Amino acid sequence: MDFELDNYFTHYENLEVHELMLRDRPRQQAYKKAIELNANFFKDKIVLDVGCGTGILSAFCAKAGAKLVYAVEASNLAEIALKVMEDNGLTSVVKVFHSKIEDFCLPTSIAKVDIIVSEWMGFYLLHEGMLDSVLFARDNFLKPDGLMFPTECAIYVAPCSVPCRFDDWNNVDGVCLKSFSSQLRKQNSNKPEILQISPEQLLHRGAVAHWMNLMDVNRTDLDEIAFEEVLVAEKSGKHQGFCIWFECRFPSENYEDAIILSTAPNCSITHWKQCVVVLPENACLEIDNNAPISFKMSMSRRSDDIRKYDLEFELLDPYAIEHPVPCECYMTKCILLKTHLQNLDTH
Amino acid sequence: MDFELDNYFTHYENLEVHELMLRDRPRQQAYKKAIELNANFFKDKIVLDVGCGTGILSAFCAKAGAKLVYAVEASNLAEIALKVMEDNGLTSVVKVFHSKIEDFCLPTSIAKVDIIVSEWMGFYLLHEGMLDSVLFARDNFLKPDGLMFPTECAIYVAPCSVPCRFDDWNNVDGVCLKSFSSQLRKQNSNKPEILQISPEQLLHRGAVAHWMNLMDVNRTDLDEIAFEEVLVAEKSGKHQGFCIWFECRFPSENYEDAIILSTAPNCSITHWKQCVVVLPENACLEIDNNAPISFKMSMSRRSDDIRKYDLEFELLDPYAIEHPVPCECYMTKCILLKTHLQNLDTH
Repeated sequence: MDFELDNYFTHYENLEVHELMLRDRPRQQAYKKAIELNANFFKDKIVLDVGCGTGILSAFCAKAGAKLVYAVEASNLAEIALKVMEDNGLTSVVKVFHSKIEDFCLPTSIAKVDIIVSEWMGFYLLHEGMLDSVLFARDNFLKPDGLMFPTECAIYVAPCSVPCRFDDWNNVDGVCLKSFSSQLRKQNSNKPEILQISPEQLLHRGAVAHWMNLMDVNRTDLDEIAFEEVLVAEKSGKHQGFCIWFECRFPSENYEDAIILSTAPNCSITHWKQCVVVLPENACLEIDNNAPISFKMSMSRRSDDIRKYDLEFELLDPYAIEHPVPCECYMTKCILLKTHLQNLDTH
Repeated sequence: MDFELDNYFTHYENLEVHELMLRDRPRQQAYKKAIELNANFFKDKIVLDVGCGTGILSAFCAKAGAKLVYAVEASNLAEIALKVMEDNGLTSVVKVFHSKIEDFCLPTSIAKVDIIVSEWMGFYLLHEGMLDSVLFARDNFLKPDGLMFPTECAIYVAPCSVPCRFDDWNNVDGVCLKSFSSQLRKQNSNKPEILQISPEQLLHRGAVAHWMNLMDVNRTDLDEIAFEEVLVAEKSGKHQGFCIWFECRFPSENYEDAIILSTAPNCSITHWKQCVVVLPENACLEIDNNAPISFKMSMSRRSDDIRKYDLEFELLDPYAIEHPVPCECYMTKCILLKTHLQNLDTH
């Protein structure tokens, strides 16, 4: 396991990974705005940045008025973060520690911190398992009334078409390459794919498969996430996969003013893109508008590598499963039930 | 060495590499047009496709009227190419062979082929060393009056600014990350980088560092390519690196109608992008318009891996080196000499 952890941090020693993240405008802007627009939360406060990387989020906090920022980084990026603080004249505020958060100790003069800032999100939110370390930090270093940046997260799922794995290949400059695409799908069939899905490719706007308040979620809550639903197609199209994305909400004075970092298909593309589980060709269906799509999704932390998850989808027979009441789908029993309920309402 | 060769072909068994190439529109369009617009060259001819991959170029040739296409592929893509031909009803024209070209034999009934088609180009043209195999095919299988698609290649070089490795990092959302960029340059300093350079970042339109006619170039000509030049800056700017790109010209009835596949900064971006050799910071200079930039470039095939090259640039002192005559640079001797030559011309 330690080997895996070492691999994990070594990956972040490749600076091109940081280049990718720093060039991700929606990511950068969400953190910057969430911190800047809520500078009142940071004024004279003590902040802990978990996995600070280049230290840019710590610098945002310092510029927003934090009294002290503990920037903790397990990889050798800590050295760069220190230089960044020197270059920006922030060494009196930002203290960089080259340490895993699990080995970190606050100075004895500091009991707890006011705010934890961290950019820990992986593909489909939970990949990398870095949230574990953030929750460790919360449990050990955050005041009971402290704040987490971000503070809430949601995982969304929607049935979708995946033309880049199917139809795009039916005619490539006049040549049918469906034998290539079927082999490409076969090659990638044992893993979800990180792809860009456009809003038009979604057959449903997306359902919240999981929601977390980072103030009270526990590490064991992250071991197994299950979701079972009947979604009603909002347009007709080819159901070729499930698209997964996430949103993170940052603290704010008013809930409705909160900055949200969204990786949804209808938002500007991020380096997380979308996570797509492609269906086997024989499970793909032409879906009519209002057709019920029922499925079970599970994300289970792998026992052999706690930073990774097994993602599983099971398609369920919409005729064999209970639908929500009322249900917007086109099945007779749902239409009858909905009409009946409407009649009750109007009488 | 065989280990390296095996690695090489295994790399091409990752279908996402083919996805990248097939989605490269300038690449696809250049081959398609070069073949379609010159269908008269292909009509009833015998074609050899060296390293056919998915077989799409072979399909283009068949559709252009070729009588027979031998599609030779060393990796297991050969299986996919065969299925592609079946899907497109082209098996009677395109014969797929799972073989290295060096192990391939034409049927005894066929003495030589009329045309060799191949997409063999790597980063900075020569990376991958696949041209060796194409020249082997030419020497062993092509009629003396046969055609090569492409038939001519040029490597260009130009001094340039590289903001993505320097200035972009001076202010990232209000934070100076120059310590990050200097570490990023250090990390990548032992290799040229594959980056996108915009035309505005070039300090010169580009000089032809090497030109090859594929009909007569020999394998040993590819072992060492050297170029020494005084280029005159066509705009002022920061000289932070050298940008390398290539162009390939396809045969055509009229030379001026030839289809050219260009990877120049002013053309649509391809998967080859541009190849950039970044200068050490202490060698970077603010360059005035008309300043002479003199340098020596060499590409030397590596003895330990013939598919790779060492790229070396040496900056030369423009005051210590002979300039071309006439020279457009701002040095007094060049201005005087140029004026003198102009006077001679007008008298």
